[in-house]
Amino acid sequence: MISEYLKNILNGNIAFLSKAITLIESSKESDKIKASELLRECLPYANKTVRIGITGVPGVGKSTFIEAFGSYLTSLGKKVAVLAIDPSSTLNKGSILGDKTRMEKLSKNKNAFIRPSPAGDTLGGVARKTRESITLCEAAGFDVILIETVGVGQSETLVHAMVDFFLLLKVSGTGDELQGIKRGIMEMTDAIVINKADGDNIKNANFAKAEFSRALHLYPQKENNWIPKVSTCSSLNNEGIIEVWNMLEEFLKLTKSNNWFDKNRINQNINWLKQNINQQLKDDFYKDTAIQTELKKQIKNIESQQTTPFEASQKLIKIYRKK
Amino acid sequence: MISEYLKNILNGNIAFLSKAITLIESSKESDKIKASELLRECLPYANKTVRIGITGVPGVGKSTFIEAFGSYLTSLGKKVAVLAIDPSSTLNKGSILGDKTRMEKLSKNKNAFIRPSPAGDTLGGVARKTRESITLCEAAGFDVILIETVGVGQSETLVHAMVDFFLLLKVSGTGDELQGIKRGIMEMTDAIVINKADGDNIKNANFAKAEFSRALHLYPQKENNWIPKVSTCSSLNNEGIIEVWNMLEEFLKLTKSNNWFDKNRINQNINWLKQNINQQLKDDFYKDTAIQTELKKQIKNIESQQTTPFEASQKLIKIYRKK
Repeated sequence: MISEYLKNILNGNIAFLSKAITLIESSKESDKIKASELLRECLPYANKTVRIGITGVPGVGKSTFIEAFGSYLTSLGKKVAVLAIDPSSTLNKGSILGDKTRMEKLSKNKNAFIRPSPAGDTLGGVARKTRESITLCEAAGFDVILIETVGVGQSETLVHAMVDFFLLLKVSGTGDELQGIKRGIMEMTDAIVINKADGDNIKNANFAKAEFSRALHLYPQKENNWIPKVSTCSSLNNEGIIEVWNMLEEFLKLTKSNNWFDKNRINQNINWLKQNINQQLKDDFYKDTAIQTELKKQIKNIESQQTTPFEASQKLIKIYRKK
Repeated sequence: MISEYLKNILNGNIAFLSKAITLIESSKESDKIKASELLRECLPYANKTVRIGITGVPGVGKSTFIEAFGSYLTSLGKKVAVLAIDPSSTLNKGSILGDKTRMEKLSKNKNAFIRPSPAGDTLGGVARKTRESITLCEAAGFDVILIETVGVGQSETLVHAMVDFFLLLKVSGTGDELQGIKRGIMEMTDAIVINKADGDNIKNANFAKAEFSRALHLYPQKENNWIPKVSTCSSLNNEGIIEVWNMLEEFLKLTKSNNWFDKNRINQNINWLKQNINQQLKDDFYKDTAIQTELKKQIKNIESQQTTPFEASQKLIKIYRKK
């Protein structure tokens, strides 16, 4: 069965790609084993792709931007996959990208593949499924992987840890654009693209561009020597879209020549290994019922100052080791 | 023995306080048990203190500032303890504050207590010892605990997680003061104090003050409703020192009235509990020799793309669970 999946995925069969992603998203133990095998087989085909994270608050025009950007990339002969990590999908069943009509043109394009955010118990679980989906899409011949997320919770950090390039989408308007930017975002950003730079908004957009450029300048140089860029675009009028891709090509040229690109991907994988291990160790600990009971008791003792965090953790670990 | 320690510490006996900290720093198993007991007994005496984290790169004048600030506090009738977390002390044996002559006046003051940074295998271990020392100092009647650190590695994050107020010390000079500020520091900062605002440097210091004020304005409002402040001082000339303490009092008034102060301390303790647990779970895992061998193998497989991070972690966890 795995070999049939693999053959069809490598042939770019979208129906099989979709089925394989469903396999990854399944919580059945037998599916997990199959998914794990399939992923290993798909791994060697990831080398020539680029993974781009796109974040921005609701209303910033992420769908319209991805529609315009993705369509331009397919016009260059590229195959584009659009995935998502949506923190709210841990509660509701997969929301962003759920409505394909938001990307009407791209969703009908045979060189594009759009998959809604998976649902999950934890944001980490959702991220993991998306990360595995990247591998499948790359094996299916997609050259550019766009990973969309909303600026809520830890989702950008998770997306940042699985992409080559991280793009922050903004709109201008208030004239004080930097206010309300989420902590840590600026440090992760490789490019800020100010959307909706059209009509009456052009002046505001240019003002925002200057302000963001100044702000980015305050951050220390990145390890890969890339200097983050700011640009404006109108997804609606298809203006400034080519420039975003040109910027990407510049980034790829730089980071492939200084070897950061490959090194970063390997480091991301090793980090994922360690994160998976740590997560599993914690899961095993906290799902233990004896630990759950004792933990509640110890937290109460901490609140009433009857124990120290150190003593409490020693007690809990001791109980756990005896198991 | 513990009751003797406790009695003397509660009486403010500095010799016993020093011995108790040495007990905490000991790696002997029997000492650890005693230390743990003593800490629990000392816990209830922490309520009326204030813990202030002070960071800044070498050369910024941390020692001179603490000398001036600490001396002023003792003149108000307060007892001041100075502790440190030095990332380099994980390699060398306790370095910052090691040389008490750097704080000549304060080290002779009977209402001050200065303790060098402990040494340790890991920065986390060093932080833990410092955190435990805070509890002892508070039981010994110290009202203000100053925790010094150098802007290297993760030390500020660790200090930030154990203090009520976080102060960043800077000097002006280049005219482009924001360049080279470490990632994440600005978000943690409750106050930036620009030191060495004397002589020819006054103009630069005022310029830096304006620049930092503007930059701080870009960050979102803090949960405790405190708006970070910027001030200048000359530790050498004892100017601007009173203003720093006045700022602290303003902060305490605000955060005690809106209940953030107590809530923050309890949350810090619960976080320490969880960090201790997670650290211990990881330590137990990674010190296992069978795991060490397999981990090396799996990392090589990841580098050569023969396995996925997910598959590799499953394999490792499976081996570990069987133990």
